[in-house]
Amino acid sequence: MINLPLNNSIILCYDTVMNIQTLKGFRDFLPLEARKRQFVLDKIKTVFTSFGFEPLETPSLEYEELLMGKYGDEGDKLMYRFEDNGARRVAMRYDQTVPLARVIAQYQNQLPLPFKRYQMQPVWRADKPQKGRFREFMQCDADIIGVDTPLSDAEIIISAGKAIEALGFKNFKILINDRNIFSNLTTAFEQSVKENELPMVIRAIDKLKKIGEEKVIEELVENGLSTERATYILQTLMDQQPTMRLKMIFHLIKQMGLKAEQFVFLPTLARGLDYYTGLIFEIEIEDYTVGSVGGGGRYNNLIGMFAGKQIPAVGFALGFDRLLEAMEEQQLFPMDLQQTKVLVSIFNIDFEDKAVAISSLLRANSINAELYLDSKVKMEKQLKYADAKQIPYVIIQGPDEVEKNVVILKNLAAREQQTLTIDEVSKILQ
Amino acid sequence: MINLPLNNSIILCYDTVMNIQTLKGFRDFLPLEARKRQFVLDKIKTVFTSFGFEPLETPSLEYEELLMGKYGDEGDKLMYRFEDNGARRVAMRYDQTVPLARVIAQYQNQLPLPFKRYQMQPVWRADKPQKGRFREFMQCDADIIGVDTPLSDAEIIISAGKAIEALGFKNFKILINDRNIFSNLTTAFEQSVKENELPMVIRAIDKLKKIGEEKVIEELVENGLSTERATYILQTLMDQQPTMRLKMIFHLIKQMGLKAEQFVFLPTLARGLDYYTGLIFEIEIEDYTVGSVGGGGRYNNLIGMFAGKQIPAVGFALGFDRLLEAMEEQQLFPMDLQQTKVLVSIFNIDFEDKAVAISSLLRANSINAELYLDSKVKMEKQLKYADAKQIPYVIIQGPDEVEKNVVILKNLAAREQQTLTIDEVSKILQ
Repeated sequence: MINLPLNNSIILCYDTVMNIQTLKGFRDFLPLEARKRQFVLDKIKTVFTSFGFEPLETPSLEYEELLMGKYGDEGDKLMYRFEDNGARRVAMRYDQTVPLARVIAQYQNQLPLPFKRYQMQPVWRADKPQKGRFREFMQCDADIIGVDTPLSDAEIIISAGKAIEALGFKNFKILINDRNIFSNLTTAFEQSVKENELPMVIRAIDKLKKIGEEKVIEELVENGLSTERATYILQTLMDQQPTMRLKMIFHLIKQMGLKAEQFVFLPTLARGLDYYTGLIFEIEIEDYTVGSVGGGGRYNNLIGMFAGKQIPAVGFALGFDRLLEAMEEQQLFPMDLQQTKVLVSIFNIDFEDKAVAISSLLRANSINAELYLDSKVKMEKQLKYADAKQIPYVIIQGPDEVEKNVVILKNLAAREQQTLTIDEVSKILQ
Repeated sequence: MINLPLNNSIILCYDTVMNIQTLKGFRDFLPLEARKRQFVLDKIKTVFTSFGFEPLETPSLEYEELLMGKYGDEGDKLMYRFEDNGARRVAMRYDQTVPLARVIAQYQNQLPLPFKRYQMQPVWRADKPQKGRFREFMQCDADIIGVDTPLSDAEIIISAGKAIEALGFKNFKILINDRNIFSNLTTAFEQSVKENELPMVIRAIDKLKKIGEEKVIEELVENGLSTERATYILQTLMDQQPTMRLKMIFHLIKQMGLKAEQFVFLPTLARGLDYYTGLIFEIEIEDYTVGSVGGGGRYNNLIGMFAGKQIPAVGFALGFDRLLEAMEEQQLFPMDLQQTKVLVSIFNIDFEDKAVAISSLLRANSINAELYLDSKVKMEKQLKYADAKQIPYVIIQGPDEVEKNVVILKNLAAREQQTLTIDEVSKILQ
């Protein structure tokens, strides 16, 4: 509903053409890309739905107060926030977990627990744009609220694994750990980590995969630990055995169909430990080196901040953009994402009604049929258009065909054509 | 990826529970509502795709400069706009037409024309919230760019009609007019409207349906026209005959399958005339009195503002929230929007593995099966959970059933149960 000034002289003043840039870190998705995104979202949605996860949508804007302080200093800095026309301080969705926590708190009395929801909406972060990092990007979350069992932990892991499989990835690995492994560091041995050192130790160990053992020890030493203690702590961590809970989870995910080579216990996995309270995991895809394509864990204390009582939760998020990138690299997108099956061309203006009838009939037979919309355009250009749009077939009906009540069906890729009745065409295209 | 302070004392301090309100005019969509929205979006998408419209997504934020001044004073006032962290003036998507125009301009060289796109994304307007009016709402647009023919006009109308039909509405009417009918007012007769009076006259006539002839004449008189001229102008307008272009469009939409009772020529239809240059139309659904559920028209000059040359366009938008409301009133939503087919209950902890195996097997057979995730919960409560979530079936396997290698399949609505093999269950649920 645009209301432009009626004064056409403004509209037609093409000398002063407007700035037509997109903001840095923001993207248009033209049809080819948009179709790939839909393909991935649909696949993920199908898997989530198969496990009984239900859709949830939350607003793009929330009270700033609700989001501030939930994502650390960096989060507060990167959040898009402003004062609206009513002088309210508002902020744009930064992730889907805090809004979920609010929803659980707000509708406690009408949401039967366990509540299993998936949510796939864009989030906004004013981060420095770079390869693979955007200011507007999609998150795909699945969470189970209100139950704290090995079964629910296992289901979160298997849902993630099944989603990855559904996208066509053959070789992936889920790295699994338990936050309580780190607590052991503070109690289990003589040179143990002090409570107040733990966040620093975790931050250093979190870099293990990236920088290696030596550098981690260096960082620990820089932060005041003796080389001996640092070495001992790292070694102790690497020697940890799975907790009882993890053993139960491992048993269950095997029962659920995860193969032994698809998961591994990694006691040094530290992942966003700040709010996790138990299980943590990350998903890696073979040959995709940018980083993990998803992960999550148990967070039993977060929802309590909003609900006023403890409500346990476990969940994960898939990295939508990384998945798309990995799928592109591994050529996992099907060739026929163009959903238009056929272009119905128009021989000339006298054949408009015939072409209209053909396209309507095809659509009535559930065939996606595009009618060329300008009968003054030459056939050659109509064919070029179909080719440019990767529409696989073109139908032509000229005077000869009309007389015999047939059409020409051109297969553009195969450079073949057949003369057929419209019923025969319908059968081929269905 | 939330980073909360590790200090649990903050998290667990439930005395200071947070403000958990949503902003006025913004909405959460809990599963039941979210499923209805998905249902409607999927139906519309299927129709758009059947005509060869392709998906497009544009960013939520644009440079403020791009959107400002495109929607009249009111638009500038209602737009969510602010300064981002990089001191750029930015604005939130206000509609999908201006972003489309930018896209056409920006990618002119890689988008083959005609370009037919659909776009279904939220837009934001800081309007006064009231029944049926929200500050964040979905728009469903379809547009054809780069062609100015009766065929393309007709296809836009039939696409809209088919979308309405696909949602299940039996009786609807498309009101159709041509902007050039109004130009006739300025040239056709003695007491004709002066060019500079036209916007005022149109604004008044736009209210005809709402306030009636007398009040329209009153408004025209208040704006300086004599009663005689006002009456004469209104009468002249009502007596107009369809333009030649409209006659061609009417012929084509009939060919395309629209019945005579599904459309009507309405010379007083004025609809957002400010930027339309030809066809305009609105869709009304019988017994839904809130207002039109969609509409659109031809706008041949808008894209030129961005592209630097004239590129014709025709399109329409469906009012997503009104459609949902009308469908609710007319009970057009299917009963089985709950996509989870069955809850696999757990008899007790010793039967966990069995229940896991059953649920995995059902999913492998493409049946959406939710596993109850807490084996310590009593069967009665598990059944209640399925009931609350409107999951139609529950599977129970206790010691007797395990021995005989069968399960109990409970149909909750019918209050019936059968003892069956898991293969038999699969067949019933598929």
